[in-house]
Amino acid sequence: MNWFATPFEALLYLIEVAATIAFALSGVIMAARKRLDIVGVCVVAFVAAFGGGTLRDLLLDQRPFFWVRNVNFIWGILALSVTAMLFMRQRHFQPTERAMLLPDAIGLGLFAAVGVDMATAAQLPALVAVMMGVITGVFGGVLRDVLCNEIPQAFQDHRPYALCAFVGGWADIGLRQLDSPAWLTVVACVVVTAGLRGLALWRNWQLPIWRV
Amino acid sequence: MNWFATPFEALLYLIEVAATIAFALSGVIMAARKRLDIVGVCVVAFVAAFGGGTLRDLLLDQRPFFWVRNVNFIWGILALSVTAMLFMRQRHFQPTERAMLLPDAIGLGLFAAVGVDMATAAQLPALVAVMMGVITGVFGGVLRDVLCNEIPQAFQDHRPYALCAFVGGWADIGLRQLDSPAWLTVVACVVVTAGLRGLALWRNWQLPIWRV
Amino acid sequence: MNWFATPFEALLYLIEVAATIAFALSGVIMAARKRLDIVGVCVVAFVAAFGGGTLRDLLLDQRPFFWVRNVNFIWGILALSVTAMLFMRQRHFQPTERAMLLPDAIGLGLFAAVGVDMATAAQLPALVAVMMGVITGVFGGVLRDVLCNEIPQAFQDHRPYALCAFVGGWADIGLRQLDSPAWLTVVACVVVTAGLRGLALWRNWQLPIWRV
Repeated sequence: MNWFATPFEALLYLIEVAATIAFALSGVIMAARKRLDIVGVCVVAFVAAFGGGTLRDLLLDQRPFFWVRNVNFIWGILALSVTAMLFMRQRHFQPTERAMLLPDAIGLGLFAAVGVDMATAAQLPALVAVMMGVITGVFGGVLRDVLCNEIPQAFQDHRPYALCAFVGGWADIGLRQLDSPAWLTVVACVVVTAGLRGLALWRNWQLPIWRV
Repeated sequence: MNWFATPFEALLYLIEVAATIAFALSGVIMAARKRLDIVGVCVVAFVAAFGGGTLRDLLLDQRPFFWVRNVNFIWGILALSVTAMLFMRQRHFQPTERAMLLPDAIGLGLFAAVGVDMATAAQLPALVAVMMGVITGVFGGVLRDVLCNEIPQAFQDHRPYALCAFVGGWADIGLRQLDSPAWLTVVACVVVTAGLRGLALWRNWQLPIWRV
Repeated sequence: MNWFATPFEALLYLIEVAATIAFALSGVIMAARKRLDIVGVCVVAFVAAFGGGTLRDLLLDQRPFFWVRNVNFIWGILALSVTAMLFMRQRHFQPTERAMLLPDAIGLGLFAAVGVDMATAAQLPALVAVMMGVITGVFGGVLRDVLCNEIPQAFQDHRPYALCAFVGGWADIGLRQLDSPAWLTVVACVVVTAGLRGLALWRNWQLPIWRV
């Protein structure tokens, strides 16, 4: 990896690292709650961090995967998992999850923007591009929960999460139609997604419920 | 999408729409039983409807996916999910499931025929082609159940379902060996699959049970 | 399939058959415990035997799959599943699992070597190649457990399994760096993996545990 062409790229990279750590830590905590062994912790952390992007690349038939191009991210996940196993105690879980809300929300927006960008580059229709953005941001957590034998949190949390990425993805698409510069579409997707997510958590918005 | 070349194609299209709705509704009902939120309902309905074909295309390395070529199907699933959430009550579940048995059985046969056709076009051996037919028809439901944290119904129902598609797929393959016209192989697969499924439900056939 | 060029190839083939049977039987037994029907038994046995290699090929974008090139393996799995359903009783499960420990351990090593080899041929970095080896050996069992609605045994067993394949994969990679002949890298991977697995079972090694 070379040095960054612009400060904006450097910022993006920093956000990406922070988001990947947040996603991986969600996997570590879930694995700890399920009392998995070190192999389980590493795999679940890896899947939580890279599962969404990998599924997107599988669907788009893109190679190489992000984690093949940047092997250091894998080493980082392994180091994180082992360190967490050595030093993390149950009383750290809740504070960690709270501290991770911000990088998680920003990362959700950034991952969605990356997904939209790759799908648009592959000439896919707008709706599919937004879906790919949502998949990039959300399906790491979905696969994490499936591996841990839980119904995915993203499907039953009743707090808007995937929906924020969905709206953010449309903001991205809309600005693309207006021939905005690339950086603006990314910023818009991140700001809309993370902003909505923040609002949803702050105002305690609930998704409508089945009255079955 | 253009108008149809023949009435047969129009009929096929109608069956495909009905089957997709039936499969999606099975996802909606499962999601409602699990009390998922609207995101979960949409995703599970989508996976139930398109998961089998998507897995087949992943395995066959075919792009674009059906739902990328026909984005209107995605909008339809989203509309169906939201409508169901607004208007469907628990007392509707059983009648809906009963009303869906027919489109589901016919759709199973049609999806199997599509899978066999695509696998044969990709020069795969007969057994693999039949497997791809079964996967197309059955794995939407399997992925739906995995996402909802259930053992897939297709694996433990003890009523023949996948097996009907398996036999129907072989009927399709057999007619191909005899150089039958394309429409006849599809009709044969649908009639055999749906006929067997209907017989199985009517006569209450049971698959043999482990006497462990 | 032609006759084998060398006795070494014939031996490899024999090991591969034995390992595939061992993996499939682990699926059969799991399916029986969950009281699946014959369709479930066949699918779970198939996934346990070929799921790891298929996931690897999906990730590496390799076609055709092993089981497409060797359709007889699919017929074998189907025959094995039906035979087991007819003749296997609960009291056979534990002895079978014990008898399968050896082919399973050797198969783990062999599958890992195959995965490393394919990933190296695709020019992937060493760490990714080792991961592909581990995925080949372990993810059949992971997918088997996910389909049966269990947390994967490989993630919570606390007995080294995936880790043996991980070390064996690095042995393979190390010998490749030294320009060893191909057969030696395979033998090293199998010996290290199966040896470690045997030691772990014999000495009852445990992976470290979360003290949450």
